[in-house]
Amino acid sequence: MPDVSGFFYPRTATGRSSLLPPPPWHYSGDLLTVEYRTDPERVAELLPGPLEPAPDDPGAVALIWADWQSCGEAGDELLDPVRAQYRECFAVVRCAFDGQVYSRCAYIWVDTDFALVRGLHQGYPKKLGSIHQTRSHPFGRAAPRIGPGGRFAGTLAAADRRLAQATVTLTGQVPAAGFVNAHPMAHHRWMPSIEKGAPDALDELVRSRSASVEGGPAWGGEATLELFESPTEEPARLEVREILGGYYQQVGVTWDGGKVLYSS
Amino acid sequence: MPDVSGFFYPRTATGRSSLLPPPPWHYSGDLLTVEYRTDPERVAELLPGPLEPAPDDPGAVALIWADWQSCGEAGDELLDPVRAQYRECFAVVRCAFDGQVYSRCAYIWVDTDFALVRGLHQGYPKKLGSIHQTRSHPFGRAAPRIGPGGRFAGTLAAADRRLAQATVTLTGQVPAAGFVNAHPMAHHRWMPSIEKGAPDALDELVRSRSASVEGGPAWGGEATLELFESPTEEPARLEVREILGGYYQQVGVTWDGGKVLYSS
Amino acid sequence: MPDVSGFFYPRTATGRSSLLPPPPWHYSGDLLTVEYRTDPERVAELLPGPLEPAPDDPGAVALIWADWQSCGEAGDELLDPVRAQYRECFAVVRCAFDGQVYSRCAYIWVDTDFALVRGLHQGYPKKLGSIHQTRSHPFGRAAPRIGPGGRFAGTLAAADRRLAQATVTLTGQVPAAGFVNAHPMAHHRWMPSIEKGAPDALDELVRSRSASVEGGPAWGGEATLELFESPTEEPARLEVREILGGYYQQVGVTWDGGKVLYSS
Amino acid sequence: MPDVSGFFYPRTATGRSSLLPPPPWHYSGDLLTVEYRTDPERVAELLPGPLEPAPDDPGAVALIWADWQSCGEAGDELLDPVRAQYRECFAVVRCAFDGQVYSRCAYIWVDTDFALVRGLHQGYPKKLGSIHQTRSHPFGRAAPRIGPGGRFAGTLAAADRRLAQATVTLTGQVPAAGFVNAHPMAHHRWMPSIEKGAPDALDELVRSRSASVEGGPAWGGEATLELFESPTEEPARLEVREILGGYYQQVGVTWDGGKVLYSS
Repeated sequence: MPDVSGFFYPRTATGRSSLLPPPPWHYSGDLLTVEYRTDPERVAELLPGPLEPAPDDPGAVALIWADWQSCGEAGDELLDPVRAQYRECFAVVRCAFDGQVYSRCAYIWVDTDFALVRGLHQGYPKKLGSIHQTRSHPFGRAAPRIGPGGRFAGTLAAADRRLAQATVTLTGQVPAAGFVNAHPMAHHRWMPSIEKGAPDALDELVRSRSASVEGGPAWGGEATLELFESPTEEPARLEVREILGGYYQQVGVTWDGGKVLYSS
Repeated sequence: MPDVSGFFYPRTATGRSSLLPPPPWHYSGDLLTVEYRTDPERVAELLPGPLEPAPDDPGAVALIWADWQSCGEAGDELLDPVRAQYRECFAVVRCAFDGQVYSRCAYIWVDTDFALVRGLHQGYPKKLGSIHQTRSHPFGRAAPRIGPGGRFAGTLAAADRRLAQATVTLTGQVPAAGFVNAHPMAHHRWMPSIEKGAPDALDELVRSRSASVEGGPAWGGEATLELFESPTEEPARLEVREILGGYYQQVGVTWDGGKVLYSS
Repeated sequence: MPDVSGFFYPRTATGRSSLLPPPPWHYSGDLLTVEYRTDPERVAELLPGPLEPAPDDPGAVALIWADWQSCGEAGDELLDPVRAQYRECFAVVRCAFDGQVYSRCAYIWVDTDFALVRGLHQGYPKKLGSIHQTRSHPFGRAAPRIGPGGRFAGTLAAADRRLAQATVTLTGQVPAAGFVNAHPMAHHRWMPSIEKGAPDALDELVRSRSASVEGGPAWGGEATLELFESPTEEPARLEVREILGGYYQQVGVTWDGGKVLYSS
Repeated sequence: MPDVSGFFYPRTATGRSSLLPPPPWHYSGDLLTVEYRTDPERVAELLPGPLEPAPDDPGAVALIWADWQSCGEAGDELLDPVRAQYRECFAVVRCAFDGQVYSRCAYIWVDTDFALVRGLHQGYPKKLGSIHQTRSHPFGRAAPRIGPGGRFAGTLAAADRRLAQATVTLTGQVPAAGFVNAHPMAHHRWMPSIEKGAPDALDELVRSRSASVEGGPAWGGEATLELFESPTEEPARLEVREILGGYYQQVGVTWDGGKVLYSS
C-alpha cells in the first residue's frame, strides 16, 4: 500500500511538496510593538469559554508588526528567499485558563502562504494582508538607526483597505518590549466539519511558546496608533483608550511544537 | 460565558471577521482543461491507502485552470470584488474507494486567502500561486471568441518559477469537458498534531461534490501542455505521456458541504 | 556600429526585451463608468495652460473602471496571459484647446508594468494601484448578468489605502456610456530634465484617440460613488456633487498613435 | 492661467500627487553582487553608438541585487514604508564614451512603481519583477551574519518565470565590492514619438552618479550564478563564462541629478 509523506499538504510519495517542513521552525526578525488599553469588554468578548479575562489589566492589547526571515531545520529556504521572507501584523490579548495567564492572538495578517498555514497549525487566526514596517539600517538617510530618536512605523491593510498604522520613536533601552505577548500562547485549533450542522471536526485548546529566544536590547519609545474600520476586519473594535508604550527589538526565535490543553 | 462566532478564523463576538461565510458557496467562472495520460505508477503513489487506483485508465490526469468569481449566500463579495475573484490551477486524478470511483485533487494553487482556506476545509491541498488564463471576449482583437479556432492558454507559477503552461485551440462542441474530474471528490482532511511525534489531530477521508451545476456547452480542441521542474513542486512528476484532449467551458456551481467517509 | 532595437526599454540587439511592442495596441474589455459633477474649479485647476475648461458642464467627471486583455499586432501576449491582462481605474475630465473640446485623463491607476509604461507613452499619468471590478458571467449565482438589475461594483486602492468605490445597477440600454470620455484625448507628455533646475526635457501636448472601436450595447443604471482621502492621491479632491449616471459596456479598441499638438 | 505642479505625473494644483518628489533621493540598503565574464560581443551589441566597449575586460558583467529603503528630502516615505521599500536586480556592463569609461545598466527589474519611474527618469531600462535577496540578521538561525561563512542568495523572476539565481558565501573583507558598477553611469533617456514613424521624441545620453555614498566594509566571497531563458527577457544572453567574484555590502547613497552628454 503506498504511503504519502509530508508534514502538511500536499502529501506525496517524496514529501517534497509539503508547504511546511516539520518543526522546528526558526525565525530571525525585527519586532515593532504598540501596547495600549482598550475597553476590557472588547477583550473579554474574544475569549471563548473556558478562557477568562486576565486578572490584571484585562483590557491590555499589543499590536505587533514583525519583519521575518524563517526556515525549517535544514535552512534551504534561506537560499531561495522567496520561501523565507514574510511580514505580519497581529493583535495579542491576555487571558486566564486553569489558574494561569496566557497570551492569545486575536487577529493576525501575514503575506505568504507558508506563514498563513504555519499559523493555522499553531492556532493563529491568519489571513493575508499587506504589511509594511520601517527597517533600520546603519547607513544613509533612508533609514532610522536603532537608538534614541530612531523613528519606526508599521502599516497594515487587508482587502485593499488600511486597517492600522503606528509609529514608535525610540527614547532608550527598557527591560522588556512590553508585557502582553510575554506569556505562553493559548490558542484554539478549529476546523469546521465538512458535514453541515455538525460540530467542529477539530476543536482543541493548545498551549505553545518559543523553544528558544535570543535577541538584542529592548528599546522603548513614544508611540502613536490609529485603527480603521472595515466591513470584514475588526481590529478597530479594540479601540485605543490609552497608549501604554512603543517598543522595538531584534530577535531570533525557534518554535518546536506545543501541548494540547483540551480537545473536544 | 462569552461565545465567539464565525465559520472559520477569526471567530469573534460579531462573527464578521470570519475569513469564510458558512456554505453554500457559489461560483461563476471559466474552466480550461487539458487531460492526458501519465505513468499510472505516478498516480498510484499519490493515493494513500485505502484508496486504490481507478480500474480504468488509471494514469489519466486533468490539469484544470479556472477563473472564478465566488461568494457566500448573501453575495456581498460581488460588490467588493477583491473578496470575490480568484484564479486556480489544479491537477486531478481518479481513484477507487469502497467499490466506487472518485476524482481527487493532487495539487492545487490559488491566488487568494479565502480560496486557499476554503480549500483546506474541503481537503484540497492548496498553496498560493500565480495563475493566468486567456479570457474570451465578444469584441476586439485582444481576446478569442468561444468557438472554432478560439485559442486559450493557461499558465501557472509558484515561488517565482513557472510550473505549467498549456494551450487549447477549440475545434467544436463535445458532450463533456473531460472525464477525470467528473466524479465525486475523495479528499483527506489532515491537520498535524501540535504535539511532536503524535498522530495527525485530524485525519478524515471526505466525499463531496457540487450541490448544483449549470453551464454552457463544452468545447473540445487541440491541446498542448508543458510541465516544469521545481525544488518544491511536483506536477512535472505527473509527466505527459499522451494528450487526451483540451476543453473549455463556462459554468456556475454551488458547493454545500460533504460527507465523512471515515475518520481516524 | 551596433544598433539596438525595441519600441521601448530595454533596447537590445534582438529587440525582444522591449517592454512594449510598437503600436497598434489592441484591447478587449469591460468598462464600468460613473459620471458626476464636481466643483468646476477643481477641474480647472488640473488644466495647465493653454488648456481651458470645457465650455459646457465644465465640472463633469467620469471615473472609469476597465478590465482589459490587450496585445500587440502579433497577439503573442494572448497565449501568455500574464502579459495581456490588466485592470485600470481612471478619472477623466474635459477641456478646450484651440476651439475644440478634448477629454483628458487626470488620474489613472493600473496593475501591470506594460500598462503603466504604455500610458506614459500616451501621456496618461499612471501609477500602480489595486483595481477590482465585478465581472459579468452567464452562469451561476456569483456574477451579475448584463441586463436590467445586474449590479456591478468597482474599487480602487493605492499604497494600501482604498481611494474609490462605486456601484452601478443596470436599468436599461442607453445611447452612449457617458459623454465625458467621448472626445479625443489631450495629454501632456512630460519628462523632467536630468539636470536640476532645467526645464522639462520633454514637454508636449499630444492628441490621440482610438483608431477603431467596436462594442456591445451601452447600459445605463443607478450609480453610487465614494471617494476617500489619502496623503498622496487626490481623486477625493474631485468631490462628488451630483451623480449624472452609471454605465456598463463591453468594447474592443485599437490604439495606433497620435499627433503632437505642440512641443516646447 | 492655472499652473500644475509636481516633479512627475500626475501634476496637480497641489503637487501632492506626483509619483516622485524632486531629487535628492536617498537610499539605504544592502547590495549582493556577482561579477563575471561573458562573450564581449554580447556586451558590445547592447551599446548603441557612439558608445564603445570598455578598453579593458569588455566582457565583464555585474549582476546586482539590492534591498532598498528610499525617500525624498523630507523623508515622509519612511513613516509610510509601503512607499519607501523596494527591491531590484540589475545587470551592469561598462562602455567608453569620449575617452572615459562608464558603467551602464543593461537590464533592471524592480518591484514598485516609484522605483520604476524613478529609473525611467535616470535612464534605467526598468521593468517590474519579483526580486528576493537573503537578509542578514544578528540573531537566530534564520539569517546569515555579515562575516566569514555568511551565505546570501538572490533570485529574480519576471512574468512568472525565474530569470536568475545566485549565491555568495562570504570569505573576507575586500577593498571594493567589484569594479563593473564603479564608474559614472552613461544612460540613454528615450521616449518614442507619439507619431508613428517619427524619430524618438526624447533621445539623450546622460551621465549621472551618486552625489554621496557611505557604507560598511565590502565583503568578498565564493559565488554561483544561473541565468534562465525567457521569451521576453534576455539576461541569459549575457551567458556566464567565468565567475569573477561575489560581494556583499551595506550602503547609504544619495542621488541628485545628472548631466546631459548629448541630446538629438
